[in-house]
Amino acid sequence: MAQHISSIADFKMEVNQSFVDKGVELEPKFIETKSEPIQLVELEKDRDNNWMLSKHSSFELKQTESLGKGEAVCFDFGNHQVGYVSFKIKPIGSPPDAPAHLRIKFGETLCEIGEDSKDYEGWLSSSWIQEEFMHIDVLPAVINMPRRYAFRYMEIKVLDTSPKYQLIFEEIRCRTVSSADMSNVAPLSSNVDEDLIKMDRVALKTLHDCMQSVFEDGPKRDRRLWIGDLRLQASANYFTFKNYDLVKRCLYLFAGLTQNEGRVGACLFIEPHMLVDDTALLDYSLFFISCLHDYYEATRDRAILEELWPVAYKQAVLSLRELDEAGVVKDREGFWAFIDWHKDLNKQGAVQGVLIYTLKQASKMAEELGCLEEVQLLDTYIKQASKGTLQKLWDEEQGFFISGKDRQISWATQVWMVLADVLEQQENEALLDRLFEKNPKINMVTPYMNHHLVEALILNGRKEKALEIMKSYWGEMIKDGADCFWELYNPEDKKESPYGSNIINSYCHAWSCTPTYFIRKYFI
Amino acid sequence: MAQHISSIADFKMEVNQSFVDKGVELEPKFIETKSEPIQLVELEKDRDNNWMLSKHSSFELKQTESLGKGEAVCFDFGNHQVGYVSFKIKPIGSPPDAPAHLRIKFGETLCEIGEDSKDYEGWLSSSWIQEEFMHIDVLPAVINMPRRYAFRYMEIKVLDTSPKYQLIFEEIRCRTVSSADMSNVAPLSSNVDEDLIKMDRVALKTLHDCMQSVFEDGPKRDRRLWIGDLRLQASANYFTFKNYDLVKRCLYLFAGLTQNEGRVGACLFIEPHMLVDDTALLDYSLFFISCLHDYYEATRDRAILEELWPVAYKQAVLSLRELDEAGVVKDREGFWAFIDWHKDLNKQGAVQGVLIYTLKQASKMAEELGCLEEVQLLDTYIKQASKGTLQKLWDEEQGFFISGKDRQISWATQVWMVLADVLEQQENEALLDRLFEKNPKINMVTPYMNHHLVEALILNGRKEKALEIMKSYWGEMIKDGADCFWELYNPEDKKESPYGSNIINSYCHAWSCTPTYFIRKYFI
Repeated sequence: MAQHISSIADFKMEVNQSFVDKGVELEPKFIETKSEPIQLVELEKDRDNNWMLSKHSSFELKQTESLGKGEAVCFDFGNHQVGYVSFKIKPIGSPPDAPAHLRIKFGETLCEIGEDSKDYEGWLSSSWIQEEFMHIDVLPAVINMPRRYAFRYMEIKVLDTSPKYQLIFEEIRCRTVSSADMSNVAPLSSNVDEDLIKMDRVALKTLHDCMQSVFEDGPKRDRRLWIGDLRLQASANYFTFKNYDLVKRCLYLFAGLTQNEGRVGACLFIEPHMLVDDTALLDYSLFFISCLHDYYEATRDRAILEELWPVAYKQAVLSLRELDEAGVVKDREGFWAFIDWHKDLNKQGAVQGVLIYTLKQASKMAEELGCLEEVQLLDTYIKQASKGTLQKLWDEEQGFFISGKDRQISWATQVWMVLADVLEQQENEALLDRLFEKNPKINMVTPYMNHHLVEALILNGRKEKALEIMKSYWGEMIKDGADCFWELYNPEDKKESPYGSNIINSYCHAWSCTPTYFIRKYFI
Repeated sequence: MAQHISSIADFKMEVNQSFVDKGVELEPKFIETKSEPIQLVELEKDRDNNWMLSKHSSFELKQTESLGKGEAVCFDFGNHQVGYVSFKIKPIGSPPDAPAHLRIKFGETLCEIGEDSKDYEGWLSSSWIQEEFMHIDVLPAVINMPRRYAFRYMEIKVLDTSPKYQLIFEEIRCRTVSSADMSNVAPLSSNVDEDLIKMDRVALKTLHDCMQSVFEDGPKRDRRLWIGDLRLQASANYFTFKNYDLVKRCLYLFAGLTQNEGRVGACLFIEPHMLVDDTALLDYSLFFISCLHDYYEATRDRAILEELWPVAYKQAVLSLRELDEAGVVKDREGFWAFIDWHKDLNKQGAVQGVLIYTLKQASKMAEELGCLEEVQLLDTYIKQASKGTLQKLWDEEQGFFISGKDRQISWATQVWMVLADVLEQQENEALLDRLFEKNPKINMVTPYMNHHLVEALILNGRKEKALEIMKSYWGEMIKDGADCFWELYNPEDKKESPYGSNIINSYCHAWSCTPTYFIRKYFI
């Protein structure tokens, strides 16, 4: 998820050093591999103004032709890479009598190579654009680029040399890094549908490339630990890479670095030192409960459940303040919860769903721990909130949950109410069917929200429909050339970006990795 | 001097490893100092479209205000610097949720800061422009810029951060480097004219900043050892820093790394390993003779004279091929000799002067070494060339030496003929007077050529005129704000550049450092 201007005015960080130390100690080992370009490519725009390959040629000779001022070459590594790039640069002609000046661009997709970065005017920082300018005074040289890039395509453009010499590039390499071990992943049975096998592979690659020092949301952008992404990544991880320690690390870090009053923050920074961001999102704070709940379900690690339960419970308690006397979350202005990127979405209804959903998980953990007082308090509020939901947010006539003073009916609200199990199972099923039938205008725009729809469908006897969504959404992304699943995808408008330009979108994004979770949990 | 397309087609390097080893062993110790900005400045264009300071403010707090997207700050270090820059960068506001993206420009003068580098269309490589783009992923950070810069002004522009944070810069430092020791330089007596004291100071700074691993032509551009520059730097060095070993190192390197048939090249590359360039210039090859001659005059180091004499003599012998039957250098097309940057200059006459001038120095060394055969041969050719000059190049009617088939009369030809002493002393004096009186259209455009005029004037009883030139040329540069003497200066057109843009000119250039030589040799 991308950054926002929603700082807490009197923000301060509360530190539980013991938790932080445990998180720090769990720093993962990185698995490194070497990769190199498989071909050279050239780009052009198609009729719809999308960048596509116009030409590709072999790179068997492993070195470029000599390039002079203004000439460029684009390498295709064949798949998504996250890592550190190095190359050799050799002069040809007279001794180099001026520095070499290069521009190097990295793109997860072709649009990042094709578009001119200077034209970028989106609202996310242009500093995310993976474009470097470099002077090389002494030639030949081995260049070890110090930053980590996420890319499939790498373009080197010679901005200038001198009329007396040109440049040859060779030994273009990427040292890829990940804390996910692909060898831990069980192969899918060959009975599985070919489309699902492909989808699983792309989802695995997505998760793999986001698993670094922590679960990053995207290795290109924002390269950091958001709890909304973590929750989905962890779920997928339990069925694939099984790196339980990385989840544990992230749980300890979120628990050790909280905001005012012990609120779990929306995201953490890892460098130069561990730090909780000043962004507060109600749904994201509550997801600490889900993360701990799911971790315990996956590991039955009672020690960590006991240790971190107070932090989870705190999130539940803090959230109760947000309820009005009827037990309904008070609606708010501004960026107070995430839910989805839809710009017109009123979030009250969906957050109410998240609240009930997570309070139920909290109650379950309290019961497991024998914390009877807490169980009682949570159950009281669950009941109250459920009742309030039905009284205030259920529109009997339309058969949908509404949200906000304008009684907005959105996909997100229905999905979260289904996941919260406010209605009986049969009513849930009917609500989901009605949702597809009536198709409310306020739809879903992220893979993140689509995940929750699929989960709701599966849990309510609509596996076929779930599969259909998976194929028409994640499956379509693959048809559109996705090497990893993207942060954002609208099959109706493939260049859509909430940030003002698709070159800033993340094309390997954690919250999109869950097809592997669905496939491995429900479809094999 | 700048690079050219004038490679030798079948170029090969001839190596005398013993000489090279001696040169390599003489790698100088660098003297390092720390410097920092003295003030902040702002720029604007004056009526003549020149960049000038519009505002300056103190930098006593030693840290900038916080800068956001699009904001810039320009530091003035108060004088010319050659070295390595470091600074601290601190975020202010929320935790940095996107990399910082900076543009950093270094300028010896304000025009390099003021002009947009993208507009540069000159014929010298744009890679010389001291402009870097930099992403910083982890903040705060200490940035140690890896390249060496030559500058007085340093501009940092924040291209982007994110809406959540801004940047503060502090501890902006330059670790300056030079192999010249200012403490070796004798102070000038306070009797010396104030203008000359100033001129001496700027000249010393120029030479100081060019003295690095070798005598560089310019620390911004080309940062390399050209023999034309070396000859003048060495002369100034003998009267100032007295770093004889640095001259010795350069002599050994030129002698150890020659072109086809043992011809001394126009310039050497030092990195990644010692290498002679494939540029061949007749006057520059002959100046090896002068460099050795002058070194011996300054040091009486007979061992090196004996050791390198064969190399010097070889240059003399190779040059004799260039004479026609009358003893006059055959005129040529293309870039076969340097002399000066005047684009219409015919070089035949001036090269004839250089040839006679250097053959005379060679003969003197041969005599010193008791090489009688060589003395005889050289003297024969000196006589023949002098006679040929008078027969073919002297225009009795006009009272000037001519050059080329169009009988061009230039300042350069007259000056070199005077230095070559082709005429009697009295005729030389008359020729110089006539030169000023008639003022031929093909004038001089570089400090390098002006040096030779001043030398000619001093050696021919025209010290007052020499002083006048020094004041009206180098003195004017100081009035125009020179911290060091420039590569190029035309008092009539201050933005002139033979390269198509004044931002690529070198503003601290070896061949302009000789006022200190004149002052200390002739005026105190």
